[in-house]
Amino acid sequence: MESLNSEQKNNHANYGKRLPFRRVVRYARSMTRYLCAPDSFKESLTAMEAARAMAQGIENADHDAEVRCLPMADGGEGTARALVDATGGSMRAVPVHDPLGRPVEGHFGLLADGTTAVVETAEASGLALLEAKERNPLIASSYGTGELMLAAVRSGAKRIIVGLGGSATNDAGAGLLQALGVRLLDKNGNDLAHGGAALANLTTIDISTMDPALKNVAITAACDVTNPLTGPTGASAVFGPQKGASKDDVATLDAALAHFAQVIDSQLGVAVNDVPGAGAAGGIGAALKGFLNAEFRPGIAIVIEQSGLDAAAQWADVVFTGEGSIDFQTKFGKTPAGVAETAKRHGKPVIAVAGHIGTGIDELHEVGIDAVFGIAPGAASLSELLADAAANVTRTTEQIVRTLQL
Amino acid sequence: MESLNSEQKNNHANYGKRLPFRRVVRYARSMTRYLCAPDSFKESLTAMEAARAMAQGIENADHDAEVRCLPMADGGEGTARALVDATGGSMRAVPVHDPLGRPVEGHFGLLADGTTAVVETAEASGLALLEAKERNPLIASSYGTGELMLAAVRSGAKRIIVGLGGSATNDAGAGLLQALGVRLLDKNGNDLAHGGAALANLTTIDISTMDPALKNVAITAACDVTNPLTGPTGASAVFGPQKGASKDDVATLDAALAHFAQVIDSQLGVAVNDVPGAGAAGGIGAALKGFLNAEFRPGIAIVIEQSGLDAAAQWADVVFTGEGSIDFQTKFGKTPAGVAETAKRHGKPVIAVAGHIGTGIDELHEVGIDAVFGIAPGAASLSELLADAAANVTRTTEQIVRTLQL
Repeated sequence: MESLNSEQKNNHANYGKRLPFRRVVRYARSMTRYLCAPDSFKESLTAMEAARAMAQGIENADHDAEVRCLPMADGGEGTARALVDATGGSMRAVPVHDPLGRPVEGHFGLLADGTTAVVETAEASGLALLEAKERNPLIASSYGTGELMLAAVRSGAKRIIVGLGGSATNDAGAGLLQALGVRLLDKNGNDLAHGGAALANLTTIDISTMDPALKNVAITAACDVTNPLTGPTGASAVFGPQKGASKDDVATLDAALAHFAQVIDSQLGVAVNDVPGAGAAGGIGAALKGFLNAEFRPGIAIVIEQSGLDAAAQWADVVFTGEGSIDFQTKFGKTPAGVAETAKRHGKPVIAVAGHIGTGIDELHEVGIDAVFGIAPGAASLSELLADAAANVTRTTEQIVRTLQL
Repeated sequence: MESLNSEQKNNHANYGKRLPFRRVVRYARSMTRYLCAPDSFKESLTAMEAARAMAQGIENADHDAEVRCLPMADGGEGTARALVDATGGSMRAVPVHDPLGRPVEGHFGLLADGTTAVVETAEASGLALLEAKERNPLIASSYGTGELMLAAVRSGAKRIIVGLGGSATNDAGAGLLQALGVRLLDKNGNDLAHGGAALANLTTIDISTMDPALKNVAITAACDVTNPLTGPTGASAVFGPQKGASKDDVATLDAALAHFAQVIDSQLGVAVNDVPGAGAAGGIGAALKGFLNAEFRPGIAIVIEQSGLDAAAQWADVVFTGEGSIDFQTKFGKTPAGVAETAKRHGKPVIAVAGHIGTGIDELHEVGIDAVFGIAPGAASLSELLADAAANVTRTTEQIVRTLQL
């Protein structure tokens, strides 16, 4: 028997005590490809800013890295900006009216193809536009969202993605329709006043006056809820209170919206009330369905498709994602979960970073997020963390890449 | 030419566009060995508690993990506890006197060998024992530290490791020596009063009265500073002010300590004043050097030796370390840097976690800490983070191990 070298001796001495060695063979390119596909970090970083902060951290740790930034969103706030940044499109400013009819500047995104626009209901019809005491879903109107859609069409859009959510309105999209030229008339032939309550007086719907440009436009609603327009799980009962509706207001609004649905059914022949998602954004879902034949899809699915995430995930060796806050609820249609699902179809590792880590992140591992890291450097107030978010994302991502290289 | 399968086609199509594949071969055991060797997380976790929190995270992520906990320290606060926990020794309680002569309970560590004790100067002679207004280095005495050393000897210690630092005293160890039986007499043959100022009156040193049990005890001082006893970089000038010394007090103390050194030199034939580290812990370094022939070594080196870190690092595949706070200064003799240096001698990856990450952690990569992660889950006050430290260490370590497994 030949004499053993020291490593062999060591193995020999341990024989039987330890499990046998297993040979692992890996193929690695010289350059590792990293995809940075985060959502925005609310109140601090847009999705593109977050992606670039990640990219900086990657490059600090791996000078030979190939990095792609693909800003993401889930159909909520920041979706237009993310898709504009992801595709190289542009944000367009439009003078519109807020939920109480006051002039404000609103924005929509026109993607790089020049024919796809992204409108968020929160932009012109959102709660953030009102003081707490101004909230009144009886009179709040979605008119501004219609103005944004019209502006998008006039900019050349052939398809409009409407992100539903965050609205201050409960008018079943009546204002939106009025902005598009639809006439909603009472028994005297007068246009209805703004707001959901006025729908109780609806007698006649005139769609002949709708802007003809809308005819050839495909509407895709980014919608993550399945609520019907009315009833105990409808727009008024579920979302009305957070918009300022009292118990009586909820009853008033629910009856008015039910009447609207009835008139749509009888005059247009479309049953909108029980369509899943009809109750989204104060019932804007019903208007998009009943008048514009919108397709309803989860926001993250639309963003994944528009952004080209699938091809990017296939390209990548490692996928980074993240969001301002991550917890067990992230698995319900939030960006990191959608990114993980896509990446996992290609067998790619997924690591998330977050400004705040809540409870139950174990459950995220089950949906393909391999690891989740917080970015806070220690005791700090929220305002400090918001101010330092980019540097903290960069530092944390750098440390993760250093760990991946071990 | 044979037809290509899809992978070959893919490679073929990309030929010339990308750098060539490089084959990486790794050997991996079925079970990965993790060493958890953190310092304490000040005010929240002992080093052993931190190590166990890490171990829990590792086990959550890797059910087949082999994990060893080896609590560490750097010679500062928590060193006795860490070495006791690392070796399976015990902490011993002793009635002693605080810097102002009040009775308190002090502790020393007796390691598993039963013959090595660890005494911290901060324990019985520390600043933490005094209210801010009670700080007075003119009269504060290191007597309690001597009492702890004597108790250690009577418990069977043949070697005492004395952790220098955190003292409220500036008496050049005069009190410590008195506790050991040394007599410090004025010109009238009376024992000196407690505190550094009284040393100005020293005429005679009588070491014949020193407890004979000390004769066969080896003293090792854990000392990370090189200050001489007196002068502009001496104990009084550099450390006096933080212990409450005014400018005049510093002059008084510096002169008194210089006189002490002169008497030691003339009566004992030992020149202590300029020994590097003589000025540590208010001059206790000088006493240990002049009277007990102490060996001076960096704290982390002593802890590494006593804890058996070298063998543990050799055993491990991955080494975790950490501390309450980590920044660029960590490289100057702090535990994570010492752990990293040891681990890197065996080529092992080192990952640190910390409650607070300060500036300049890039510099830590240069000393062998491959990556550093914060444990804070988001915006939080210090007290919240201290309360949740164990859970946050566990969560963070789990995510790191998940990342290592990718």
